[in-house]
Amino acid sequence: MDSLRIGIAGVGTVGACVAVKLLAEAVQGATIKRLAVRDINKDRGFSVPEAQWTQNTLELADADDVDVVVELIGGADGIALDLVRTALVNKKHVVTANKALLAKHGVELAELAENNNCILSYEAAVAGGIPVIKALSEGLAANNIYRINGILNGTCNFILTEMETKGAGYEETLHIAQELGYAEADPTFDVEGIDAAQKLSLLSAIAFGQKPNENDVTTRGISDVAAIDFEFAEGFGAVIRLIARAEKKIIEDASSISSSAGEIVQAVEPCLVRKSSVLSGISGVTNAVQFETDMVDVMLQGPGAGGEATASAVLADIADLNQFIKSGMQISPYVFGRSVSELVASQGETEVMPSQWYIRLNLKDAPGSMAKVTSILAEHNVSIEEAVQRGPQNGEDRRPVVFITHKCEKSAIKNALEALEAIDVIAKDVNYMPVI
Amino acid sequence: MDSLRIGIAGVGTVGACVAVKLLAEAVQGATIKRLAVRDINKDRGFSVPEAQWTQNTLELADADDVDVVVELIGGADGIALDLVRTALVNKKHVVTANKALLAKHGVELAELAENNNCILSYEAAVAGGIPVIKALSEGLAANNIYRINGILNGTCNFILTEMETKGAGYEETLHIAQELGYAEADPTFDVEGIDAAQKLSLLSAIAFGQKPNENDVTTRGISDVAAIDFEFAEGFGAVIRLIARAEKKIIEDASSISSSAGEIVQAVEPCLVRKSSVLSGISGVTNAVQFETDMVDVMLQGPGAGGEATASAVLADIADLNQFIKSGMQISPYVFGRSVSELVASQGETEVMPSQWYIRLNLKDAPGSMAKVTSILAEHNVSIEEAVQRGPQNGEDRRPVVFITHKCEKSAIKNALEALEAIDVIAKDVNYMPVI
Repeated sequence: MDSLRIGIAGVGTVGACVAVKLLAEAVQGATIKRLAVRDINKDRGFSVPEAQWTQNTLELADADDVDVVVELIGGADGIALDLVRTALVNKKHVVTANKALLAKHGVELAELAENNNCILSYEAAVAGGIPVIKALSEGLAANNIYRINGILNGTCNFILTEMETKGAGYEETLHIAQELGYAEADPTFDVEGIDAAQKLSLLSAIAFGQKPNENDVTTRGISDVAAIDFEFAEGFGAVIRLIARAEKKIIEDASSISSSAGEIVQAVEPCLVRKSSVLSGISGVTNAVQFETDMVDVMLQGPGAGGEATASAVLADIADLNQFIKSGMQISPYVFGRSVSELVASQGETEVMPSQWYIRLNLKDAPGSMAKVTSILAEHNVSIEEAVQRGPQNGEDRRPVVFITHKCEKSAIKNALEALEAIDVIAKDVNYMPVI
Repeated sequence: MDSLRIGIAGVGTVGACVAVKLLAEAVQGATIKRLAVRDINKDRGFSVPEAQWTQNTLELADADDVDVVVELIGGADGIALDLVRTALVNKKHVVTANKALLAKHGVELAELAENNNCILSYEAAVAGGIPVIKALSEGLAANNIYRINGILNGTCNFILTEMETKGAGYEETLHIAQELGYAEADPTFDVEGIDAAQKLSLLSAIAFGQKPNENDVTTRGISDVAAIDFEFAEGFGAVIRLIARAEKKIIEDASSISSSAGEIVQAVEPCLVRKSSVLSGISGVTNAVQFETDMVDVMLQGPGAGGEATASAVLADIADLNQFIKSGMQISPYVFGRSVSELVASQGETEVMPSQWYIRLNLKDAPGSMAKVTSILAEHNVSIEEAVQRGPQNGEDRRPVVFITHKCEKSAIKNALEALEAIDVIAKDVNYMPVI
């Protein structure tokens, strides 16, 4: 085959950038044959000679003159799912930037790719323009991955670093992010950690051979993080970031510590990140992914979103496909690095590994409050490494107090917090985060 | 072919790690058939069933039961060169960690690989365990690369960050690095920037399509950096790092700024790195590479040396080869991303791009010294943005003074310094660095 014939579905910011770069021969030998859009009459500022425009998206999956369908529509279901399914059944390769689709239907689609000997690639679905999928699946091909730590959502990272530098509150900063176009009108998907969880589930699948499923990820968003948490964090030499973590749960027994045994733990939650960690330096909309392995720890950082960054990853996938197909390679259609039949079943949500915890409470200004709190913590086997108490805030009748605990299970923290919330010395606005 | 048959030449720290991991099936289907070592009787703590050990390295290039020669001997010439040449002529693939070899003989070896339809891969030759070659050549395949900034030598970065944190001098810190095993007994190759220049020339070849040649890289080592430079740097909100830079020289004229025209500029030299740059946060023996492109800027960081890190990259190359060969792919034997016939000729050393400069002088404590200096700088069109003068150091009759210049050509700085050194107000120990 001389030329890789491309059909692009969805010509928004990313799709337009992909099209313009392909027209400029960013991938030698790849030509656009069809483009599917919602409004065929809209002027997009570029023309594609010899390509057909259509409003019937599924046409791309049937067209004889299309080898690769580039899905840039988005959404976990609906037309994106129909298109990718049909394209694979019709033995067309698929390049997609759609994390929601893969986090929900990845197993089914990977099976379709295998059965039809097609490639389904998705570099753009995780961490935008940073080639993390390639680094993980090829650059660290021979490594045993122990842990992934990522800052996978630019919206949350922007909000948290703005709160940090401006001393502002969450709601106020969210509005700024919305005005700047870094957060959607309905920001739920980003700020509640769902987007990061979807991306993490894809990295986990490749790293640990588990069926991707966003529901396996313990997910907590950033809306409980308050301006005062940054002040306390600074005092502990730390910052606050929404960290996506996945690791093999280490089974400790008397005789050995095994890292190959055990289940996979996946979590997305705000964390206190010590400034000694490279992730603490990741600011604004930047994304970063750190891989800890048996041979090497590496980190990649760059823009996690934006038209050009996402297009860069889509085009890299197209360039790979172009290379494969030109060379007549018998394709390895393993979407998550191995056959779906070898992927371990989704395990459901699992408890995160024990860690140190940051707990912030608001104590009512009454005698004996602190004694009551510390005794309840002790009852739940939560032992305290550091405690900091502040004076009453803004004339209110409450005092913020923060504890850094020794290493313990999250369940102990949650049980202790539940018990604390039931007693009368705690005011509202409790927050807790693991320390990493 | 069911199994990829490997011959390893050189079983030191890296070779042993590669062997042990291959024995543990880190790359499924790859088996070690032969190992070439200097001393066949040495106990290496592992055995390789069914493999032959030999002291005749060239045997690997002739053996019928070897598909891939893994060259871990090192050195730009000698047996490493003989082995790689012979292996390619005999149509065997080669994986090497040898930057010196490729920076000197890369063009010849790339031609041999092309003519014999073999792969010559070298992920481990640049930035150790960080998959930078893959990120650049595949992950950014469709990108137009504008600039590469790298911290490519762990020895220098360790020395510079030690000097920074301890306030110690260069010689003293070099000894510490030697004691810790981070610097060789003869440290020239590392501290004079030669190692970094070799690595940079390989990245430049891929990024800009130029024949790799370490002699094209303007190279200056770190031995002129003094403890006091770090104090001044701190005052300017900066640190000092040995930065390897390659970029397209932008041709500015009245009508346009073109980044595709112009020659490639390559330099390795100590730089004042502002703390706003992500490279300023890279400490110790860590390496980092930043790629600035038309679509995305990304940075990768991790260990640049060490047995396991280097082995990780060697094994990734072996895994890629395994994948290619299993799939019956018509191999693309382009060592630097395109045919050697398409590579632009080596251009010789070119002047680095204009930048701001840090200049440190020691003024003799005499009336009018500062006036003489500033007028000579002005005569050479070096205009000053900031100047800081300190009192006499340690009772000596000299005062360190530092200038941060406005943007200007390096030639202007060098001419000005030459003129300054000829006048009687300047004591020894002059230093200058670009500000990035």
